[in-house]
Amino acid sequence: MAGTQLYAKLAIIGAGLIGSSLARAARRAGAAGTIAVHDRDAAVRAETASLGFADAVCASLEEAVAGADLVVIATPVGAIADVIKALGPYLEAGATLSDVGSVKSPVAALAAELRADIAFIPAHPVAGTEHSGPAAGFGELFDGRWTILTPVEGRASKASRDRLEAFWQALGARVAVMDAAHHDRALAVTSHLPHLLAFTLVGTAADLEALGEEEIVKYAAGGFRDYTRIAASDPVMWRDIFLANTPAVLGVLDRFAEDLARLRTAIEAGDGEALFEAFARARLLRAKVHAAGQG
Amino acid sequence: MAGTQLYAKLAIIGAGLIGSSLARAARRAGAAGTIAVHDRDAAVRAETASLGFADAVCASLEEAVAGADLVVIATPVGAIADVIKALGPYLEAGATLSDVGSVKSPVAALAAELRADIAFIPAHPVAGTEHSGPAAGFGELFDGRWTILTPVEGRASKASRDRLEAFWQALGARVAVMDAAHHDRALAVTSHLPHLLAFTLVGTAADLEALGEEEIVKYAAGGFRDYTRIAASDPVMWRDIFLANTPAVLGVLDRFAEDLARLRTAIEAGDGEALFEAFARARLLRAKVHAAGQG
Repeated sequence: MAGTQLYAKLAIIGAGLIGSSLARAARRAGAAGTIAVHDRDAAVRAETASLGFADAVCASLEEAVAGADLVVIATPVGAIADVIKALGPYLEAGATLSDVGSVKSPVAALAAELRADIAFIPAHPVAGTEHSGPAAGFGELFDGRWTILTPVEGRASKASRDRLEAFWQALGARVAVMDAAHHDRALAVTSHLPHLLAFTLVGTAADLEALGEEEIVKYAAGGFRDYTRIAASDPVMWRDIFLANTPAVLGVLDRFAEDLARLRTAIEAGDGEALFEAFARARLLRAKVHAAGQG
Repeated sequence: MAGTQLYAKLAIIGAGLIGSSLARAARRAGAAGTIAVHDRDAAVRAETASLGFADAVCASLEEAVAGADLVVIATPVGAIADVIKALGPYLEAGATLSDVGSVKSPVAALAAELRADIAFIPAHPVAGTEHSGPAAGFGELFDGRWTILTPVEGRASKASRDRLEAFWQALGARVAVMDAAHHDRALAVTSHLPHLLAFTLVGTAADLEALGEEEIVKYAAGGFRDYTRIAASDPVMWRDIFLANTPAVLGVLDRFAEDLARLRTAIEAGDGEALFEAFARARLLRAKVHAAGQG
């Protein structure tokens, strides 16, 4: 599909689920003239080359970013600082540097270490699956989902922000703009805590002496299977997220733990009315998620 | 589809998601000669009649169970005792009485109040969706899912158990047999706790002052949406489950809370290794759920 070309060369660093989906979606939209991908893992580079969604698969960062007017870092959050340090010297003057990390405050803080002639616009496409790697990506991943831009004051012109926004829209996404701290609080509750609960529950279940794994697996259709799916997400990515968004995650986690303790008390006391009220209320939000096209 | 008729008349009490799916699946399989449905709610009866999946929609329990050789109670768990008391006098001698409740120990305890000439075999099809009511049911709901029979010692002949097992298999289900207490422990972790966590998280999110509902809904694709789906399940059904399976639920809930506190400590301490280990381990179970056909 030929659309409006918004960048002459897009360089993507990291060919995982998001990086490879980004390449595919950009190609589908005709949003970039050429697409170069670098991954530090040679096996991932070989797989990427065989999948054919990039014009060039580069063994070096330098080669990937040479001549690129848009560079997107699609590594786990914990690797972004090192990548920025490593590619800094090779960036074209005037290029836009962005990322797709799930936590934005630590990324925003890296602006200070970046050359002044680079437009720095951290971003987060709120989309994903539990699968990992270049073969797991697909060009429709961002369709109808939100990509959040968290521009850093004074680090990007309005024109460069508008262009990145148009780029994500061309890829099928809707775009929201907010500051990094607000993003991190919002995602702590809509994404990070849900993943933490899933990781925890699956671990708790696996540790029960009274119940074999075989039985847990057999009766997973009662609700547990959704947790196993969420808990199948990439462990490195999620380790980095919890290390990077600690205060916001602990804040909502503590609220959740209080609410859970309150429902525990209601169960123990046989307080059906309190349980019914809590459950009926939770039901209402589902319709709104559906209505917003995020179901 | 004409299959082997296993019962001459199937009576289903309660035309919700499970009851109406049971009628549709039995008809699809040709497993019952006639299917009569009773619901105490006149509006649900009218809807059931218009949907046409039952041969008879009966205003009275008596009419529904008259001549039935299989009666299945498909009400919320909390209503089963009253239904058994009400229909007891009308059951045909030699009929099989079963149910589809998600908690089995309290149902097993009702055997004492039942006539000796009735084969009493509590059951639980581990299947469902977040939707409720007769229009939400479908004949494929039980395909490949497990139905657990929890026979009560001395309350059903082997022949009547075998027939009920063949019936569920004809409906597409796989059948497991275990005692009620074991069932309740297994489901506490694979179904009841997952629902409690989802109800709690959705409530916690809705209560956050720093975040509007609109934002929670927008970014639900980051993981939260799965919880809103689970939390959309029928609140009366779930209230009854937690009131009926209190000790088993509290047992796994306390284990979960300990595990969650441990991961909280790791996050606060920045212990990436502990987080990675917990997350990588949780990932493994997903493949097993898939391999077991329960994904």
